[in-house]
Amino acid sequence: MMFSEDLDHPLVHGGRLAAAQRLFADAPEPFVDLSTGINPYSYPLPQLPPDLFTRLPDPEVLATVASIAAQSYGAPSPAHVVPAPGTQILLSLVAALIDPARAAVVAPTYREHARAAALAGHRVSEIADLEAAREAMLVIVTNPNNPDGRLFDNNELITLAKRLATRGGLLVMDEAFMDVGPRDASLAGEVGRNAIVVLRSFGKFFGLAGIRLGFALAAPQLAARLSAKLGPWAVSGPALAIGATALADRAWIKQTRNRLIAAADRLKAILLSAGIEIVGGSALFQLARTPAASDLFHHLGRAGILVRNFSEHPSWLRFGLPDTEAAWARLQMAMAAYADTH
Amino acid sequence: MMFSEDLDHPLVHGGRLAAAQRLFADAPEPFVDLSTGINPYSYPLPQLPPDLFTRLPDPEVLATVASIAAQSYGAPSPAHVVPAPGTQILLSLVAALIDPARAAVVAPTYREHARAAALAGHRVSEIADLEAAREAMLVIVTNPNNPDGRLFDNNELITLAKRLATRGGLLVMDEAFMDVGPRDASLAGEVGRNAIVVLRSFGKFFGLAGIRLGFALAAPQLAARLSAKLGPWAVSGPALAIGATALADRAWIKQTRNRLIAAADRLKAILLSAGIEIVGGSALFQLARTPAASDLFHHLGRAGILVRNFSEHPSWLRFGLPDTEAAWARLQMAMAAYADTH
Repeated sequence: MMFSEDLDHPLVHGGRLAAAQRLFADAPEPFVDLSTGINPYSYPLPQLPPDLFTRLPDPEVLATVASIAAQSYGAPSPAHVVPAPGTQILLSLVAALIDPARAAVVAPTYREHARAAALAGHRVSEIADLEAAREAMLVIVTNPNNPDGRLFDNNELITLAKRLATRGGLLVMDEAFMDVGPRDASLAGEVGRNAIVVLRSFGKFFGLAGIRLGFALAAPQLAARLSAKLGPWAVSGPALAIGATALADRAWIKQTRNRLIAAADRLKAILLSAGIEIVGGSALFQLARTPAASDLFHHLGRAGILVRNFSEHPSWLRFGLPDTEAAWARLQMAMAAYADTH
Repeated sequence: MMFSEDLDHPLVHGGRLAAAQRLFADAPEPFVDLSTGINPYSYPLPQLPPDLFTRLPDPEVLATVASIAAQSYGAPSPAHVVPAPGTQILLSLVAALIDPARAAVVAPTYREHARAAALAGHRVSEIADLEAAREAMLVIVTNPNNPDGRLFDNNELITLAKRLATRGGLLVMDEAFMDVGPRDASLAGEVGRNAIVVLRSFGKFFGLAGIRLGFALAAPQLAARLSAKLGPWAVSGPALAIGATALADRAWIKQTRNRLIAAADRLKAILLSAGIEIVGGSALFQLARTPAASDLFHHLGRAGILVRNFSEHPSWLRFGLPDTEAAWARLQMAMAAYADTH
């Protein structure tokens, strides 16, 4: 399938709470936003001294964050790490690391990948699996995949990367949800040897999507090209300070992984009890499939619960994790009421 | 003069306080940092609710900020405004709005312009004045200029933009220091009619360089292309919230303009009393020229005062504004002591 969006027109994503509040004006407040895959048990915000806001971000702090991120993600060295204001802004820059050619995005997946590759001048196809990537110079894989949690085999990915390398191509791995994934599936350790760029999101696992922090992991010469495009001071002072603290906090990271896995089990149980089929997911979200998805979306909306629907996959709904016990209770009640009437 | 830096290697800028503290290890603390052109009387930070940090920045708040910025800067409409995480990251994106060609940067100026244009594939020359721009498809002008405060004539600029438009070229105006400049010199109102992109920095005038916020003002079709490259959520939640409040605060803006103009006069008086020639400047910085610039740089460094030197212009020093009365007093004493011994 060829990708042919209007390139300058924004795609619709989760998290549009204000729009949901208008659509479901009579819903009980506060709205429970399950429409994103962001950890609701966010890293506690440290004290932020005012000079993080007033001064230009210090290049030495940026270097420190790159070093901590290299260790935390398992990249070979800080020279393999490019801190950025979120991974989103990196997508078209990474796609532009190779000259316009054929690009393949393993889909269905996060739709900004196809758009960013097209913006970089590539002829973009959406493909169903790695086998279909033979013709492409740029291959983009989200692992674990969003929204269905699909996992790809490391050996297959590395074989693909080697093949791409011999002809000057590139494998881009979006590991936005790898922090709670089977972490030995990460290709972060491979970026020095192979034609691989790994993208790591900070905001999703740490529950701090608003600060805009993410990383590209790549061979030093590619990393230097990306850093040059971003220029100095791409990441805000508060984001660097928070990132430096959070990425080094091994106790919190470990505890949060366990907490998210338990929460995902609880979410699955609620959906299954209501008779909803689960197609897949990760610790941060579950993908449900039901022919009545539109009904369920509106039922939940009227109950003040926003989930993610997909215009191109009308039988899908993606559920993120509730934040509080009150939110869990509301989801459980709304799902039970739905099951009773369907 | 052709621009021929190593493109992947960072340039050196002001604000490197940690490096200065190592160089002048015996200097009295706290260091007085006059090495940037950032307003030291920064906009008071509003309360920042935690969900600015945890949630993805709301696209509707982004639209609100674009609307407030359009009004504050005098752009024709919100569709002419692209909010970005600082203007720095926009430089190579704006330069890439036209296909690789000849680019001319009116210099000496902020050196990232030449680098960003070269990164976008242009053949970059540094030129001394607008007349020398005849051959270029992309012309970049900083107005008022950094570091010498040079001002360019509106009519000449618009004539140049019209000429560029007829052959598919582009005029880029960096108005980072226009907030306290002669504001009727801004070309913000012209971006709808002409092949002009105006860059406006938020952090310099509002004294909040750490949050990373800046704007491109451009015709709607160019603005849409820039927004598409940045992707959704380019600007952090805290930056959007602070920007929305600060850009609409007319009373603070007016009062701060007056305060900065008075502070600039005070800074000029200190430099002139010490017998230092002032080449030019803006309300946020003064450019001094002396054959003893290196001596003075080290004299001030030993006194715990960091100013901006320029490897390519060894007789120049740029002075930003001291923040506190104590900082003013230290600058005055250090300059007087320097004058006494030279």
